[in-house]
Amino acid sequence: MAIIECIPNVSEGRRGDVVESIAAAIRAVPGARLLDYSSDPSHNRSVFTFAGDAASVKAAVLAIYAKAIPAIDLRAHEGEHPRLGAVDVVPFVPIDGVTMNDCVALAKEVGTDVASRFGVPVYLYEEASNNPARKNLEDIRRGEFEGLAAKMAAAEWKPDFGPGVPHQTAGASVIGARMPLIAYNINLNTNRLDVAKKIAAAIRQSSGGFRFVKAAGFELKDRGIVQVSMNLTNYEKTPIFRVFESVKREAERYGVTILESEIVGLVPSAALNAAAEYYLQIADFTPDAQVLENKLRQT
Amino acid sequence: MAIIECIPNVSEGRRGDVVESIAAAIRAVPGARLLDYSSDPSHNRSVFTFAGDAASVKAAVLAIYAKAIPAIDLRAHEGEHPRLGAVDVVPFVPIDGVTMNDCVALAKEVGTDVASRFGVPVYLYEEASNNPARKNLEDIRRGEFEGLAAKMAAAEWKPDFGPGVPHQTAGASVIGARMPLIAYNINLNTNRLDVAKKIAAAIRQSSGGFRFVKAAGFELKDRGIVQVSMNLTNYEKTPIFRVFESVKREAERYGVTILESEIVGLVPSAALNAAAEYYLQIADFTPDAQVLENKLRQT
Repeated sequence: MAIIECIPNVSEGRRGDVVESIAAAIRAVPGARLLDYSSDPSHNRSVFTFAGDAASVKAAVLAIYAKAIPAIDLRAHEGEHPRLGAVDVVPFVPIDGVTMNDCVALAKEVGTDVASRFGVPVYLYEEASNNPARKNLEDIRRGEFEGLAAKMAAAEWKPDFGPGVPHQTAGASVIGARMPLIAYNINLNTNRLDVAKKIAAAIRQSSGGFRFVKAAGFELKDRGIVQVSMNLTNYEKTPIFRVFESVKREAERYGVTILESEIVGLVPSAALNAAAEYYLQIADFTPDAQVLENKLRQT
Repeated sequence: MAIIECIPNVSEGRRGDVVESIAAAIRAVPGARLLDYSSDPSHNRSVFTFAGDAASVKAAVLAIYAKAIPAIDLRAHEGEHPRLGAVDVVPFVPIDGVTMNDCVALAKEVGTDVASRFGVPVYLYEEASNNPARKNLEDIRRGEFEGLAAKMAAAEWKPDFGPGVPHQTAGASVIGARMPLIAYNINLNTNRLDVAKKIAAAIRQSSGGFRFVKAAGFELKDRGIVQVSMNLTNYEKTPIFRVFESVKREAERYGVTILESEIVGLVPSAALNAAAEYYLQIADFTPDAQVLENKLRQT
């Protein structure tokens, strides 16, 4: 059975009753499995993670809009996190038995419905967008809700679906398809923040490193160590093990070793299998046929 | 849902119609999923791999006996592989949501039924046996079908269930519970068979190595290399990565490197996750909560 993951970001992180009503709406959809949700009051934002086949995931997203639109008024919304809409971002992620193209098609289908049912303008992003200027979430969201009406007046910001002006209370939504994102941190055996920052700069795309790595150096003051904190945005093309080995080698340059790494939240088993395959030098390995759990899912 | 794997070994590897009738009998049980089966004509033996909850797995095993008992006469059976019974060995393996104790209980339940319904004496083995002299399959099977009547005459070989004499055509069965077995080979960058044999001796339990490793050295003549061929019988207590690193270190002693390794057949994802966790130095990793597919199975 096809499994698509969906991780909507909703602009409400303080009113527990609103957050719970959205969680309940997801749970109420047959076939949609709510895996996790959490709220950040200072961001005033909640992130829901659920999965299911295309039809279930679509129904759950529409159910979220039905709860969020009447409950959230962005004109009165304050929070540290940038946001454009009440339902701010909706990514679809291929997990099992489904392609990226399937997720792109789903993003367009859901986008069409969100625009027509709720009158919310929708921008496609990442893999669902063909426009290089509108692939990155940051580019689409720049100016936020407060600057949205002015931004949309320009021809190049005509939305992919829906009206050419913001929804009065719900702004706009960014809907698209992307690979699973892995939040991955490596802690170093040192308190030298400059080392973490230099390593982060060496490995991240923006300063010449790996194509699918975002990275920054941080201090973990209470532990007296530093951390290279990363988002890996395509573990197939930039695998965890290659990033780990690069950080290790860069650290050696400064006489520093790796203390430990950590995976924050969820990781697809394929990303871990690839690391096992690499380090154990496994030849001719076919995870779909050889990993017992994969085989069970298919039979 | 609980998942138990069962890998019965049946003493028929030449008559395709008999093998297919057994495969069909497994497939016909609701909830039993036949993952793989293969026959070896020179061994005159077939191995079936299927999985399901306890009730489905039990029903499938009894269906196998119902097909095998009338079709197989061990008095006329020839093959290279040692065997004691028509349905020779039936191991139950805990995979997900089930403990080893559950599998031991299932082995005893199935053993009782096999004895009463088919009149076949049953020996419990591995984790299902409390008798140290009757834990290893090799010990129970020694003497084979041909020596079984004489062997069973001794008090210490009274079966756990069923009659004190062999079934006339079907001999006896060995039923039990064990951890998943991983067939794992490491190929070395050398044609020196002595090196493969020395490494195998260094790492296997029987000559002082790891508790849950069986190993032998072989030549792969067509490729001009040698192989350390292994069975890992408990990947939790003797993990793949530790075996791999030991082989690598032992090989260095002879100036030899690892060319590649290979996993033959199925491997539980937990065994691969453990390797990723080890090499990537992942701290505080909880596969049940963090591996996306595990989380999906539970939700």
